[in-house]
Amino acid sequence: MPRTVPFVFPLTVRYLEVDQQGVVFNMWYLAYFDDAWTAFLEEGGLPYGEMLADGHDVQVVHTELDWHGPLGFGDPAEVRVGLGALGRSSITVQFEVWTGDRRVVSATTVYVVVPVGGQGSAPIPERLRASLGDPVPLR
Amino acid sequence: MPRTVPFVFPLTVRYLEVDQQGVVFNMWYLAYFDDAWTAFLEEGGLPYGEMLADGHDVQVVHTELDWHGPLGFGDPAEVRVGLGALGRSSITVQFEVWTGDRRVVSATTVYVVVPVGGQGSAPIPERLRASLGDPVPLR
Amino acid sequence: MPRTVPFVFPLTVRYLEVDQQGVVFNMWYLAYFDDAWTAFLEEGGLPYGEMLADGHDVQVVHTELDWHGPLGFGDPAEVRVGLGALGRSSITVQFEVWTGDRRVVSATTVYVVVPVGGQGSAPIPERLRASLGDPVPLR
Amino acid sequence: MPRTVPFVFPLTVRYLEVDQQGVVFNMWYLAYFDDAWTAFLEEGGLPYGEMLADGHDVQVVHTELDWHGPLGFGDPAEVRVGLGALGRSSITVQFEVWTGDRRVVSATTVYVVVPVGGQGSAPIPERLRASLGDPVPLR
Repeated sequence: MPRTVPFVFPLTVRYLEVDQQGVVFNMWYLAYFDDAWTAFLEEGGLPYGEMLADGHDVQVVHTELDWHGPLGFGDPAEVRVGLGALGRSSITVQFEVWTGDRRVVSATTVYVVVPVGGQGSAPIPERLRASLGDPVPLR
Repeated sequence: MPRTVPFVFPLTVRYLEVDQQGVVFNMWYLAYFDDAWTAFLEEGGLPYGEMLADGHDVQVVHTELDWHGPLGFGDPAEVRVGLGALGRSSITVQFEVWTGDRRVVSATTVYVVVPVGGQGSAPIPERLRASLGDPVPLR
Repeated sequence: MPRTVPFVFPLTVRYLEVDQQGVVFNMWYLAYFDDAWTAFLEEGGLPYGEMLADGHDVQVVHTELDWHGPLGFGDPAEVRVGLGALGRSSITVQFEVWTGDRRVVSATTVYVVVPVGGQGSAPIPERLRASLGDPVPLR
Repeated sequence: MPRTVPFVFPLTVRYLEVDQQGVVFNMWYLAYFDDAWTAFLEEGGLPYGEMLADGHDVQVVHTELDWHGPLGFGDPAEVRVGLGALGRSSITVQFEVWTGDRRVVSATTVYVVVPVGGQGSAPIPERLRASLGDPVPLR
């Protein structure tokens, strides 16, 4: 099944995520990306729970974010997800948060595959690789 | 070693806990109580990790909170903890958040002892009971 | 427009909300109720931002929760919302979280209407009262 | 008053910050850095509330994090803070989280000074610059 490109995850800002400046506090973007990443895998046919049951997990080893503007409570928003690159055990994913035609945040995250309950990295398993599809960077 | 009565846990409001009304969002009080409860057990000689290692855990089965006023970023604050009552497997704990001489929240939480990895409730183990001390309700 | 009774808000557990016991940490239920309350008002024709623009806000003054069981990552779940009772300035709302045919949490929250930027309580404004509909308790 | 170099902020992992892998979920490191940044300014003689009262605020425009290992509940930990560089309106700050002699996370954050309630960036005000001290990067 071909993937939607780019994958879009609709985002609803929670009231509690907005600080006294009236904008989403920075850490919540990492929550949005985690939510979007889970949905991205699921669209590719790999629910997160099944990946764990197969004995694999992924850990974030690097992430970088640039903020271009604010996001407020009630603003319609979405996360766009694009697969950046694949290494032996690493997966580079690009994220962007948009509200309307305004880009709020750009980010890049590197995940590494690890064995459940184990140590060190592991090669990307075949089922996970198939679910990711081909790299189609957002930028 | 006799316990401090009431047990007082100093509280620092995080910037991210304050919403666009400029006050701590309601759910964070449950985080404060969890932090204070962990510190309360530790003062009684039972670090949480050791309780788990002994095969026991506690779960919240009931909590009720009354808000008397707001708490803002930078306000000095503390959580007061008082043991309310002990049942066979249940522990009733009272919490209050104060800033200066103003009471912000009053709460009562009921914990139940459960076996780690198991089901159903278990009697309060001796070491936990000893660490709790005698009931000295806050109100 | 007649309201849906009971109002149902679909809930997705975030990975970050699950603790090392593998269950949703207690405070996140207050986040779910806040999300569901916002959606409940919106279904009744009153987006939260418009209520604020009209000069009214609501504050939680009391909430009580009973946990009947756990909720895990990936569990399908929903929040049911029922209007319990209306006072001069207070609104009592019942919430329940369900996964499948199992009830996870029952809760009751009391909100009080306050003027934006002001002090003390205010009578429930007409537009808010209309959006709430008639009391139809869940239990 | 000379600053402590590097500035060290003691960190206590909250139970709720640990996910079902048993490690602190990634977004909470941004909370730790925000807490440490506030304490860093305060040690330099500028409580955050006074900076706001002076009409200035800071916004995060960029942050990047590298994870070297996990942090668990109950692990003793600290955040080290080092001023990296100063621009006209930007402040680059380095953060590291350590537990014992093991480095858990390295991060770099860029803040920009903004006028309270205004738009665009503003030059770093004199009082803020004085509180920051001289750049002493961690790495």
